Amino acid sequence: MTKTNRGRFFEDYRIGEVIHHAVPRTVSGGERALYHALYPARHALHSSDEFARSAGLAQAPLDDWAAFHLVFGKTVPDVSLNAVANLGYAEGRWHLPVYPGDTLRATSEVIGLKQNSNGKTGVVWVRTRGLNQRDACVLDYVRWVMVRKGNPDADAPETRVPDLKPVLAAEDLALPAGLDFTGYDFTLAGEPHRWGDYAIGEQIDHVDGATVEEAEHMLATRLWQNTAKVHFDTSARPDGRRLIYGGHVISMARALSFNGLANAQMVVGLNGGAHANPCLAGTTLRAWSEVLDKAETAAPGVGAIRLRLVATSGGAPFQLKGADGKYLPEVLLDLDYWALMPR
Amino acid sequence: MTKTNRGRFFEDYRIGEVIHHAVPRTVSGGERALYHALYPARHALHSSDEFARSAGLAQAPLDDWAAFHLVFGKTVPDVSLNAVANLGYAEGRWHLPVYPGDTLRATSEVIGLKQNSNGKTGVVWVRTRGLNQRDACVLDYVRWVMVRKGNPDADAPETRVPDLKPVLAAEDLALPAGLDFTGYDFTLAGEPHRWGDYAIGEQIDHVDGATVEEAEHMLATRLWQNTAKVHFDTSARPDGRRLIYGGHVISMARALSFNGLANAQMVVGLNGGAHANPCLAGTTLRAWSEVLDKAETAAPGVGAIRLRLVATSGGAPFQLKGADGKYLPEVLLDLDYWALMPR
Amino acid sequence: MTKTNRGRFFEDYRIGEVIHHAVPRTVSGGERALYHALYPARHALHSSDEFARSAGLAQAPLDDWAAFHLVFGKTVPDVSLNAVANLGYAEGRWHLPVYPGDTLRATSEVIGLKQNSNGKTGVVWVRTRGLNQRDACVLDYVRWVMVRKGNPDADAPETRVPDLKPVLAAEDLALPAGLDFTGYDFTLAGEPHRWGDYAIGEQIDHVDGATVEEAEHMLATRLWQNTAKVHFDTSARPDGRRLIYGGHVISMARALSFNGLANAQMVVGLNGGAHANPCLAGTTLRAWSEVLDKAETAAPGVGAIRLRLVATSGGAPFQLKGADGKYLPEVLLDLDYWALMPR
Repeated sequence: MTKTNRGRFFEDYRIGEVIHHAVPRTVSGGERALYHALYPARHALHSSDEFARSAGLAQAPLDDWAAFHLVFGKTVPDVSLNAVANLGYAEGRWHLPVYPGDTLRATSEVIGLKQNSNGKTGVVWVRTRGLNQRDACVLDYVRWVMVRKGNPDADAPETRVPDLKPVLAAEDLALPAGLDFTGYDFTLAGEPHRWGDYAIGEQIDHVDGATVEEAEHMLATRLWQNTAKVHFDTSARPDGRRLIYGGHVISMARALSFNGLANAQMVVGLNGGAHANPCLAGTTLRAWSEVLDKAETAAPGVGAIRLRLVATSGGAPFQLKGADGKYLPEVLLDLDYWALMPR
Repeated sequence: MTKTNRGRFFEDYRIGEVIHHAVPRTVSGGERALYHALYPARHALHSSDEFARSAGLAQAPLDDWAAFHLVFGKTVPDVSLNAVANLGYAEGRWHLPVYPGDTLRATSEVIGLKQNSNGKTGVVWVRTRGLNQRDACVLDYVRWVMVRKGNPDADAPETRVPDLKPVLAAEDLALPAGLDFTGYDFTLAGEPHRWGDYAIGEQIDHVDGATVEEAEHMLATRLWQNTAKVHFDTSARPDGRRLIYGGHVISMARALSFNGLANAQMVVGLNGGAHANPCLAGTTLRAWSEVLDKAETAAPGVGAIRLRLVATSGGAPFQLKGADGKYLPEVLLDLDYWALMPR
Repeated sequence: MTKTNRGRFFEDYRIGEVIHHAVPRTVSGGERALYHALYPARHALHSSDEFARSAGLAQAPLDDWAAFHLVFGKTVPDVSLNAVANLGYAEGRWHLPVYPGDTLRATSEVIGLKQNSNGKTGVVWVRTRGLNQRDACVLDYVRWVMVRKGNPDADAPETRVPDLKPVLAAEDLALPAGLDFTGYDFTLAGEPHRWGDYAIGEQIDHVDGATVEEAEHMLATRLWQNTAKVHFDTSARPDGRRLIYGGHVISMARALSFNGLANAQMVVGLNGGAHANPCLAGTTLRAWSEVLDKAETAAPGVGAIRLRLVATSGGAPFQLKGADGKYLPEVLLDLDYWALMPR
């Protein structure tokens, strides 16, 4: 009997099934420090316990994307080991800050299945939940991936495509209990621009660049216990290159976006995202943002801002797609998220 | 008077001498997080405080090999600075889990000496003990190294070759106080295979590979305060390459072995080990295991399993030595250890 | 309106102005562990809580240079984003140890201005203070940088060159409250040499070398939230190389100096320093020291030692400048500091 995990194939998923992912993980100041070493992360709320307390939180939480990556990493052996492509995200919400000492685990519910016409692959939709040691949901999101069939002769399941919100409404967002930006210190945060200073349609070139090394993206991806071979093993791809985990590009772009969006402190919603082109070591990542929407919130002094975050490997900012409607080759990431800012 | 340490030579060791190694070290969640960044470590007991508590421990201990490396690192300036080769390990036992907040130091007792017939080198056997802040022994092991003579004319010491157990018996192993696997959660741990599912002689190909970078092995080796020049200084070897610390290969192979041995949670005995061939950056490490023995233990629900862990730079699994009785060139590590599993 | 920070230009500084730097930072065991992974740091006082307690401190503080880098990093967006060169340091003093849990922020007071004769650049002197969560000053230092003018037609300010001490006197140094080396354990510290064993004029070759990788210096520099483009972005310099942060060279050289100065435990004064030549990845760093002065202190068993620390990329030790009075090309750093040692 083989002891190793070959991963699930398309025919192994059933609608309604809940997969309990393995290897719970306790975080500490170590993960927080590593996040600062791996990314040019400077948002004050995640950097300073004092700043976080002044905003009504218990202490500085782990970066919101670090929490996402930890939960995502747990799902890889069950969801994407035989994946051909990560197709999309929707309805992602951060419900609770993750603090040092918290232990995270993850579950995924299969909410959609659709065999492709070639009969060799299919699309699987899962709603993944990250749970803490009190079984409270810290974040959830829908992800869909194209997965190989293990047995090409397996019957196609009944097609079920979930009805997903293209964009979360501001009232769908969870606000951290106690969050209060009425005493917000813009000097300590690093920029004077408040929620009211951003206009829908406004575009921001984040200017800075970061050239990525193999060791860096592997350290990061391992930290999240993401085991997908293509990130670590030069023999896993025909070209002998290691593919950089898409989440590494997200975190790098988000950190670069500090320059112009220093006050977009907390990420609370993920409307969607595309890893438009693969990223390899040696790339110099750049980022630009566009304000897609704005909304008031019930938390004191807190506004919500919906942002497009685009990571590129160069080229002029604010260019996304070509005349053919496809992403330009230098576009690596097109992310649509909600953040919380001081009003 | 020179202030720098030239290290000890063969003639500087005396039977019965106890060397107190320098630089005690306090560990925290930082070392634990770094271990997860450096290796694809996923054993639940070392990843989650909650999982560790459910198994009767106070919290998730530092990885057993991290504890070993920290103790080993302290011995380098006194034992292996002038070593020609690390020849072997025996009678290694982990006595106590190492938790964040613990402070480790190390001592080594010289238990064997044998000058080589060439008169230029000799073999030194030491029993190294890692002690915590309460002077309790957290682990001990015997190591023997070939060391240069500083003065070729120094008299040969009386030969003393210690009588070492080729293999620890199961009853020699220390079981962590309170360890209890009767409530073990196989789903959270990541695999269903329990102690009873493994047969003596069974071989497991761990499938995954990890390509190693210079920055990674240097970060790891420095973290353990191991200062051997060959790992860090490209001018230390004629070929201008940095030799990867053998312990980096151990930790990488052990982490890769999760895939097939996810429930071999705690390493408690080191019977022996050979660093069969040197490892350099750029190598893609793979691993396979063989079940050498099994034994019951007195701890509730806990079985002991003796495993051969082999790290390779490629080639087919389960090949160890050539017709000449020598390790194949792709074999980097041949380790013999005891681990604890749920029964 | 542009949202991104273009940095300050020479004409933007005013004598007496106090700049409050952004992004306070809470440190934990994570930063301490990373420091040990990034540098071969072995000074026992920063490695072991037990050793630090035996010397009268609450626990092992963060390495003194880590505290410096954290404070320095905060100043970069306001002081050196448009800097042409980092010209010097003076009157640097460490006032309080930084412990896990502390939150650091920084301010800089403009204390000198002098436009260069070319009319395109000027020199700015600032006194930077690192403050903890109780608003106590943990360290301060003077730094001067050459900064570009944004508008070449801007009026030259009145020249003010501050009167700086070329060297701090021993009585200017702050001694950590409670520091007591009367029970100092030289065996645990790693070397027998006490304060009395060092002679003014004595030179020490630290022997060891460390070859630096791109990933390492970027991880380090990001950890200190230093955002200067030249360290991260291969497109920021005409040669496509990343310049290594001068502080990385300081920390590496200081750590290498353990071999010969293991008992120079705490850095308490920075008299001056020059980053003599740029450092790039691939360099094998070496270090040598010279004893410049010695002084008694009021703390029990504690002596002060003034050291020159020189980092090189090779060449013979103890060579600093050529016949032309300029630093030799292999000299990367020439640092003048005070440390505390057991008497």
